[in-house]
Parts: sequence; structure tokens; C-alpha cells
Amino acid sequence: MSTDQLNELSATAIVEKISSGSVTAEAVTQACLDRIAAREDTVKAWAYIDPDYALAQARILDDADVKGPLHGLPIGVKDVIDTSDMPTQMQSPAYEGHQPKTDASCVAMLRAAGAVILGKTVTCEFAGSFPGPTTNPHNPAHTPGGSSSGSGAAVADYMVHGAFGTQTGGSVLRPASFCGAVGYKPTYNLINRSGLMFAAENLDTIGLLTRTVDDADLLMSVLLNRPRSAIIAPETKPKIGFCRTHHWDSALAETITAMEDSLKRLEQAGAEIIDITLPESFAGLSTARNALNDFERSRVMADLWQNERDQLSTNIAKQLENGTIMEYNTYRDAVTLANDSRAQLEGIFGDVDFCLAPAATGEAPEGLGYTGDPQFQGCWTILHVPTISLPTHKGPNGLPVGIQLVGQRWQDESLLSWSRWVMNKLRPAL
Amino acid sequence: MSTDQLNELSATAIVEKISSGSVTAEAVTQACLDRIAAREDTVKAWAYIDPDYALAQARILDDADVKGPLHGLPIGVKDVIDTSDMPTQMQSPAYEGHQPKTDASCVAMLRAAGAVILGKTVTCEFAGSFPGPTTNPHNPAHTPGGSSSGSGAAVADYMVHGAFGTQTGGSVLRPASFCGAVGYKPTYNLINRSGLMFAAENLDTIGLLTRTVDDADLLMSVLLNRPRSAIIAPETKPKIGFCRTHHWDSALAETITAMEDSLKRLEQAGAEIIDITLPESFAGLSTARNALNDFERSRVMADLWQNERDQLSTNIAKQLENGTIMEYNTYRDAVTLANDSRAQLEGIFGDVDFCLAPAATGEAPEGLGYTGDPQFQGCWTILHVPTISLPTHKGPNGLPVGIQLVGQRWQDESLLSWSRWVMNKLRPAL
Repeated sequence: MSTDQLNELSATAIVEKISSGSVTAEAVTQACLDRIAAREDTVKAWAYIDPDYALAQARILDDADVKGPLHGLPIGVKDVIDTSDMPTQMQSPAYEGHQPKTDASCVAMLRAAGAVILGKTVTCEFAGSFPGPTTNPHNPAHTPGGSSSGSGAAVADYMVHGAFGTQTGGSVLRPASFCGAVGYKPTYNLINRSGLMFAAENLDTIGLLTRTVDDADLLMSVLLNRPRSAIIAPETKPKIGFCRTHHWDSALAETITAMEDSLKRLEQAGAEIIDITLPESFAGLSTARNALNDFERSRVMADLWQNERDQLSTNIAKQLENGTIMEYNTYRDAVTLANDSRAQLEGIFGDVDFCLAPAATGEAPEGLGYTGDPQFQGCWTILHVPTISLPTHKGPNGLPVGIQLVGQRWQDESLLSWSRWVMNKLRPAL
Repeated sequence: MSTDQLNELSATAIVEKISSGSVTAEAVTQACLDRIAAREDTVKAWAYIDPDYALAQARILDDADVKGPLHGLPIGVKDVIDTSDMPTQMQSPAYEGHQPKTDASCVAMLRAAGAVILGKTVTCEFAGSFPGPTTNPHNPAHTPGGSSSGSGAAVADYMVHGAFGTQTGGSVLRPASFCGAVGYKPTYNLINRSGLMFAAENLDTIGLLTRTVDDADLLMSVLLNRPRSAIIAPETKPKIGFCRTHHWDSALAETITAMEDSLKRLEQAGAEIIDITLPESFAGLSTARNALNDFERSRVMADLWQNERDQLSTNIAKQLENGTIMEYNTYRDAVTLANDSRAQLEGIFGDVDFCLAPAATGEAPEGLGYTGDPQFQGCWTILHVPTISLPTHKGPNGLPVGIQLVGQRWQDESLLSWSRWVMNKLRPAL
């Protein structure tokens, strides 16, 4: 694809063009809407979009002074995050037409910086695992991943420049890897969650789907009121931990190849690679994550479970039933293992600059009924560390295969800086 | 007060009476409503209450099988926590008439166990520091404390058997101490916060106002699906840490007397007392808590700040302005200090069974414009440990003065067990 189309430019390039007056916000939004009109019948990424209203937002920005660093930038919002001017429907009949009073924190922050809230993107039911209609933009017979299915597909398909997702297991990084986007899950709780419908509060993290690392960094700089993260000189030689995790046996050939190729090329670029082995106790985090997930979700959705059970999928109903009957000790043991593991991780990572790990088992599987295995993402989610999936490789069917970089808690700027360095080594054009 | 009045009995006694058929849920609710009718003009504890609807809930329970362990128990809900059948108005004109779609998690859990949701209790504006109209039930010229003002006053004044509060600084324990109730703030995040309007997500904790420790334990057993906490034999001899905290200089004479008297009598009961001194670095937690509070609240309320600023008090507007201009590094430094301090605390507490600390500076101050100094509560809130205020003493004006017990994170059952033991030693009638 050529990059003279406005919908194909990076967010960083777009805000420069709009603020310098070389394009209008309306033209940018129109380019996104045109792409959506051409592709939405196939991709089905949007839960709600009103083209006239999107254009109206853009025109108001064009008629005013530059509002902030995102002036005119179109953004998609996963449909479990509140918007004051669009319904928030959770991909559930129980929330059909539901209109929140206010924008979620993250939406209000971007809007205040000049973003155009383009529309709501398809989520799995309540950000769980029961899929919506979205397809993989590279092949509609394959899943886009989930639960941030629409955000991953829309960004990868050039329908919008960036979008919010949420990750409780693997819901930002898996669709990013499957669709070929950058998927960034910050340190737990770094993006304020006010106005997010929780899945499991101890795990839920709002994240970003973008096409470049720079774009994720731009949005974070606005959300957090911080400067852009540092540029690391190309000749810098990082110490990288390679971490197979306890799920290595589930890695398909294309993921193993992506890891081996990345390691080889990063080593050629001067990186020192060391193996990082997680303690045996970390193998229990998978079960612990399920326990946290079920126990907390059954509390988040207690009202719906009592009063609108017939509106829920059997998939989520089973989870709520598990959580409702779970004894507190089971939950507390899971929390304790998670807390202890988080405290240990800093020592395990030692002095590496970041870790490299599989982003997903492999390419997006065929079929739309299952959004894929969350283990390679979820094992880091419960550790609360920042992670990012970078679109670096392709699999045997020509579908994207990402790699995952993992940082230390609250060292998000370092992770973004190193992600930019890695992309420059592996895919210098992005 | 005699305890033959149904509104004056403990929650534990009430649910036994109702489930055994010796009184009706309707009679219990009616007793609460009668008390409210007699006292509300003075105490002003309720933001919303519909007596007919409360009685209708009770009658439905009377006509059905026992629904759960709280069958027929009236409960109050702080007006920053969502209810599906009553407005949730945050003590702000910006939320006048606001009707949430679903019950908050904690409300739905108690309702499913048979509780009658009696009404919504007055909060300070958005659970901050700008007070509502509530007065101290012991003397209407004095503050009830805040921000869970209505929950503290209503429970202490026998209008309801228990109520939810929330604590970001000192908003559960201070009204408990000032009004003479038990105020329990669990380990951070223990009570699910879905359906709570956040103040500052890294600090906000839902807690309980009750009249006995047993009652707090009963409600927790329902919320968490756990057995009641263990009864500690009266002859057991605990090791108690006495912690003056960095705020000791602000303790008034009545608080110092309450501490000294408690220590003397607990020592007579066989307790070993050791001094616990917090490291000098912990003195910075007060500033860190303000930074977390302002930064996060400015994100929670970003939409209101942009679009309904004229509806906000100057008090909260100042906080939002501080948070909006605060640089991320200031916030991150505050989070780092808080995280480091939490990790250190376990070693500082060592092998004590619990710590004893002041609950508040002293009696409730005169006047309704200021809900009191939050430091003695807030220094523990930011550490995420469970705390409880016990109504053990009186001050020079005859107003209540509490003492605070502090446990280790995720050791809430132990803290409740020891709280019961302490109350048996200091006020055996409660």
C-alpha cells in the first residue's frame, strides 16, 4: 500500500500535517471513513460508527485553534469503554443501546487533546472470550484475535490510526499479533480505568493498538502528561533476556522461527542475549489467572448474573458460575502467588534491558468461533509488567506473526524506547 | 439505649431473628424507617430514601424462602456506589437524578444474599473533601467526618445496621471514629470496586460501617464467600505493635489518652506491646498520597473538568487543576515510594499480631465545613493494609474517640479476629 493515503499515515505524521495546516481534520476523518466504507462489510470491526457525527467532530476542530497534541486524530474505542456521545454495548444484548453519562477517563483525555472519537470497536462479549463478528483483515476466514478484535483489525486495516483495547488475559497483544499491529499493554493500572467495564479488576489493563511504536508513545505522552520517550542511538548494544515461558511447547513453527530470526538479527546488531528461565512456581500462574478471572468477574457481573442471566452466552455464564461458587481461599491463594511472583520478577530479569518472548502461539487460527490461545500474553498480564507486540514476521499462510517485548513494572518509557530500537533493526521501514 | 428496638440490634442478631422467623424483614425495615423519620431532620444522613420502596423490598423477602445469609437486613450505600433502582448522585449537581443501569458489585452481592437496600447515604462531593449536609449524631454542631459522612452517622445513630463507605484518604475510619461506629477498610481492592465512581484508583477501597466487629465480618463473609473469621480465645496473649506514625504531633489529648488507656488495659489482659517506628522515608507518603490523589482524580473526572466545570466546587476544582498540570514524573515518584513502602512494611511489622495506632486526631471538630484531618487514616490507606476503627473511648465533649488496628495485607481475617478480641477486652458489651 502506498502511504499517500491519509488513513495509511502514522498518527504521528497525521497530527504534524494537521497542526501545520497542510491537511484538514475533516480530510483525515473522511479518508478513514472511506476505508471503512470499502472494507467494513468484510472486516466487521465497528460496533458503532456514525460517519456524519465523526465528520462533524472533525469540522469543529478545523474551525478552531489547535486544541492539543492530537488535534484531528481519529481514534477507535473498544466497546467496553464508556463514551458520552455513543452507546457502549459490551457486545451483549444486555447492554443494547446503553448510553453512559460521561466519557471514560482515557477517552476524555484524548478528546481534550483534540482527538476525533471515530467510533466504537467490536469487543468479545464483555471483553471475555465469546467472539463478535470481526474477521482478520488479512484473511476473513481467520480470527482477528480477541477480545479487542475490532481495535486490532481496524488499526491493521488502516481504518483508523489508533484504538484503545483492554487486556485481562491476552486481549491487546493477541489481536495485535494476529492482525499485524503494534499492541501495547502498559504496566497494570497505568492508563486510568475509570469508565471501563471491568472483567477482572486485578488484571484488566487498558492498552493501545497502533501501527507504530511512535504512535503508541505519542498517545501515552498525552494520557500521562509526559515527554515522548527517549530515542536510543542505533549503535547502542542492549542486553536482551530471551524467555520461552512455561508455554513454549505450544509455540507453532512460525513463532519459533520468528523468535530465532529475531534473536539472530538482534545479536548481529550487537545485542547480548541471555536465557531467562522463570521459576517452576510461575507455572501455577496460569491456573491462578483463571481463578482471579472467574472470582472477580462473578463479582463484577453479579447484578447481571442475578437478573439478566438469559442475556449471557453459555461461555460467560460458565465462568460466572465457577466464580460464584469459588471459595475465597482459592482466590486468595491465587492473589498470593501473583503478588509473590511479581515481587520475584525484578530479580529474575536482573540487568537485562528487556525480555523477548513469543507474542502468540503462531498465526491467527482459521475460524471465527475461537479467538486463540491467551497463554503467551496472559502469563505477563498477571505479572503486571508492560508488554508490547511488534509486527515483525509472517507465517506459512502469509498472516502476521508478532514478537513480544517485556519490560519491568513502571519502566514503560524504557520498553517503548527499546521497542523502537528493535523495530528499526528488524523492520526499518516502520 | 435499650436493645429491644429492632433498629438497635446488631446485624448478626437481626439476620438470626429474621431467618428463624421470630421477626419479619418488614418489621426490621420499619424500625429503621421510624428512627430515620425521628432523626433525619437533625442528622441528614440520607441522600436518597424511599420508605415505601424499602418496605416493598422487605415484604417480598418475607413472602419468599430465605434468600441468603443476610435475609431482610437493611443496608445503606454511600452515594458514589451504583444502585440499579435508586439514583447515584455523588453529592454533585452534575449527577442530579443520575440513574445507573446496574447495581455495583458490592450492592448486588449483598442483595443476592437477601439484604434490603434501604437507601443512599450522603457523601462528600465525589467522595472528596467538600462536605454534604450530614451532622454528627452525638452533636449536630460537629462534623460527622467524611467522606462517608452519611454511612457513619446513619449506622452510629441506629438508622441502619450497616453501610458501605469508601476510603481514599480517611473516608471510612474517620467518620467511624467521629460518630462512634466500627469502620473497616479492607486490604486494597478486596471488595470489588465495579460500579464505584473512583476518586483515585490506586487508593480507593470500599469499606464497611457497622456497630460491631461481628457485623463487619458477617458482611465480608458474604462478599467473599468465606467462613466467618476465627474466634480467638480470651486468654490468648497477642504481640501488639504500637505505632505513633509520623503524625503523632497532631494527636489531641483525647487521642493520646485513648492510646495510653488501651495499651495499659491490653497489657493487663496479657498482651506484649512493642514500639513500631516507621522509617523516615514513610514521612513522604503524605505528599505522595496527595500526588496520587490529584493526578488520578484529574483523570477520573477529565470529562467533567472539560465539560461541566461550573458544576464543581472550588475545592475539587483546585484538586483537578493540580492533577491536570502535574508532570508524570511527580506521579511516578509517588507511586514508586508507595510501592517500595508497601514492600518494606511486612518486615517492619515483623511478628506482631497487629498494630495499634491513633484512629483520628481526636473528637469530631466543631463545624460542618471541614470533615477533619485525614492523616492518621490516610497514611495506612496508601500502604494498602487493612485497618479498622473501634469505638472505644470518649473525648472531653462526650464525643466518640476511636482506636485504629492495622493488619498486614491480605490478612483481613486475622485483623477482624483480633479486633473482636480487643473489643472484648476494652468494651465487653459490644
